[in-house]
Amino acid sequence: MPRNAFYAQSGGVTAVINVSAAAVIETARQYPDKIGKVYAGRNGIIGALTEDLIDTSLETHAHIAALKHTPSGAFGSCRYQLKSFDKHQLEYERLVEVFKAHDIGYFFYNGGGDSADTCLKVSHLCDQMGYPLQAIHIPKTVDNDLPFTDCCPGFGSVAKYVAISIREAGFDVASMAKTSTKVFIMEVMGRHAGWIAAAGGLAAEKDGDAPQVILFPEVAFDEDAFLAKVDEAVKKYGFCAVVASEGLRNKDGQFLSETGTKDVFGHAQLGGLAPILAKLVKDRLKYKYHWAVSDYLQRAARHIASGTDVEHAYAVGKAAVEMAVAGKCGVMPIIQRDSDVPYSWSIGEASLEQIANVEKKMPRDFISKDGFHITEACRRYLSPLIQGENYPPYVDGLPQYITLQNKPVTKLTGRDFKV
Amino acid sequence: MPRNAFYAQSGGVTAVINVSAAAVIETARQYPDKIGKVYAGRNGIIGALTEDLIDTSLETHAHIAALKHTPSGAFGSCRYQLKSFDKHQLEYERLVEVFKAHDIGYFFYNGGGDSADTCLKVSHLCDQMGYPLQAIHIPKTVDNDLPFTDCCPGFGSVAKYVAISIREAGFDVASMAKTSTKVFIMEVMGRHAGWIAAAGGLAAEKDGDAPQVILFPEVAFDEDAFLAKVDEAVKKYGFCAVVASEGLRNKDGQFLSETGTKDVFGHAQLGGLAPILAKLVKDRLKYKYHWAVSDYLQRAARHIASGTDVEHAYAVGKAAVEMAVAGKCGVMPIIQRDSDVPYSWSIGEASLEQIANVEKKMPRDFISKDGFHITEACRRYLSPLIQGENYPPYVDGLPQYITLQNKPVTKLTGRDFKV
Repeated sequence: MPRNAFYAQSGGVTAVINVSAAAVIETARQYPDKIGKVYAGRNGIIGALTEDLIDTSLETHAHIAALKHTPSGAFGSCRYQLKSFDKHQLEYERLVEVFKAHDIGYFFYNGGGDSADTCLKVSHLCDQMGYPLQAIHIPKTVDNDLPFTDCCPGFGSVAKYVAISIREAGFDVASMAKTSTKVFIMEVMGRHAGWIAAAGGLAAEKDGDAPQVILFPEVAFDEDAFLAKVDEAVKKYGFCAVVASEGLRNKDGQFLSETGTKDVFGHAQLGGLAPILAKLVKDRLKYKYHWAVSDYLQRAARHIASGTDVEHAYAVGKAAVEMAVAGKCGVMPIIQRDSDVPYSWSIGEASLEQIANVEKKMPRDFISKDGFHITEACRRYLSPLIQGENYPPYVDGLPQYITLQNKPVTKLTGRDFKV
Repeated sequence: MPRNAFYAQSGGVTAVINVSAAAVIETARQYPDKIGKVYAGRNGIIGALTEDLIDTSLETHAHIAALKHTPSGAFGSCRYQLKSFDKHQLEYERLVEVFKAHDIGYFFYNGGGDSADTCLKVSHLCDQMGYPLQAIHIPKTVDNDLPFTDCCPGFGSVAKYVAISIREAGFDVASMAKTSTKVFIMEVMGRHAGWIAAAGGLAAEKDGDAPQVILFPEVAFDEDAFLAKVDEAVKKYGFCAVVASEGLRNKDGQFLSETGTKDVFGHAQLGGLAPILAKLVKDRLKYKYHWAVSDYLQRAARHIASGTDVEHAYAVGKAAVEMAVAGKCGVMPIIQRDSDVPYSWSIGEASLEQIANVEKKMPRDFISKDGFHITEACRRYLSPLIQGENYPPYVDGLPQYITLQNKPVTKLTGRDFKV
């Protein structure tokens, strides 16, 4: 008898997490003897705890296919981590209650490091509570900081967006530099790892190309060295383009964006590393500047998603279902690189025990000696990940992203559960 | 005998100003009996004053054609306005000296309102100093604030970028809203006119779509009304996406970005309207927020340029040359709208006397009664301007933008001129 599947999205969403969703649903539909319906959790694991399930079988094939060109999380995401079994057994009992009521035999959780931890905990339900369940994690994170997998779906598209954006802004500021803006600073995501900032470096293919300076969270910020580097670029090339990771820290380990300026009431200034760096440039170098903070735009930019990234995202979703029907549990499909040039890759498998809560930072040999740019090794690693333009369809000049019906599954447990 | 042409780019650059440059150069090459070489001014009018001319005849046809998919100003731009003839006659004498030395008979200036003023002044050289010259202005400005022309080349591409970006970010925040970010604020350009912010409104095709709130410079900021509107959207749709024009002012006419917070030294906080609005949302509504400032990214985003905009930019460049060889002077080709649906347009002509230094703001009937969105009339106006995706070519995942050789023309005047 086929059993139903639960699929949910967790953590910060990406341009391609819905590609993995489409892969799970389309692949599950190919195993009618093993998998019944795919129920999506509304807002991640919260949907399971509150029995707020979405019946994806009510969506047409065309609408599910349209997820492949739609950014964000089609079923809603959440920032919610399950506590340990000992600390919050009630939550686990509730999960089993809901899963039993809906005959959930497969659990697919699509997220980053924290979500892998949640998935790992759910995978233990089988042992701890005798409930038979195949729990598989599907990797997703723009931060590219999961271990074992060569890269994370979601990252390639942000990387492409950042590299294109800083190339474009670099051309712009180069045109303006004679009488106006000489320094441009673009702040990008990456609280702990500099992968996204590094991707900006791909735009610089020859001497003088933007960006001339990259600031990584892995390298303690040295104000004098930074300003000297900016000044050198302005003097040599007429302008300087900077990509700065939001997670930049000073030598004491404090986030730069949390130091410095306070508002008139004495509160720490709200976010924004870029304006802090811009102020340094203005005060100490006296150059005219502009700054940008891409924030969600970078991770939602499906309009310029990486073709490679879209392929990866589909492949991990498909593999997750195949692993589940093969009886696996507590694992995650990973991307394995077989060759840099020409780029070739395959799907492997890693245990969640090894993945949960581990962050992969940039290796030191991916950052240039002076700490302000990427090395050739980094370029070889990153370049394949931004290849290919997977454009969405347009109507009236705008990309046609799908909003699913998201019809709820009838509740069967007969009780509410507070999260 | 053919005479040479001078072409230069002025003011803030755009995703498509180089399309107009390509049009001027390609069209001029079709009139060898009238136009000799096209000399580009390095950094706008400064190139003329300092005799820093670029010989575009040394660039291949393929490289000139590549300008059509390259953002920024290929010859460098400037922020430099000629003073009046009375106040700074030396500058005008210098222009005539340089133009005579290089037999410049045509002057094409590609810019916005300030540049139209410069072009108008140059067009008077003929009368004032007896120097025969056809001066034609070519419209360009992301602000869309030139009068007479239905729209300005450069605007359609920013409009498309902003509409796509807020749609994408809206999908993102909608996914996150359950447990995390509920309000997203995107700051866009537009110091005096709200055209760019208005374009964000195109993304909202049905009730609940992002953006739910738009802030225009034309509408005095009312903090309570704004917060009530945001709160209403969050309660009704679960989230709120805001597009805010950098030129937003309070009822006393002060820029919001110049009021409010000061740093620890008492300096006014650097730029950034978005973080100020975000702080209001946080302090008074207690919602989690994210904010983005696109800055140069929006106007340099050739990767998602509007097809209509690219066509307009080419057409005005071509028409400028045709007007010049027809003996016209002191005019500017304009875009005339013949029909909204299906969109059709043609090239008209306006006198620079009427255009220079006039700003076209949003008509009141383009802004909804409550001041927070666009009307159907505005949508009918804007929609055609973002139609069509004119993608640049890609190599290794990155758009291939051209950097010309920009070889200098030998100086003939034998003297320097300080600007």
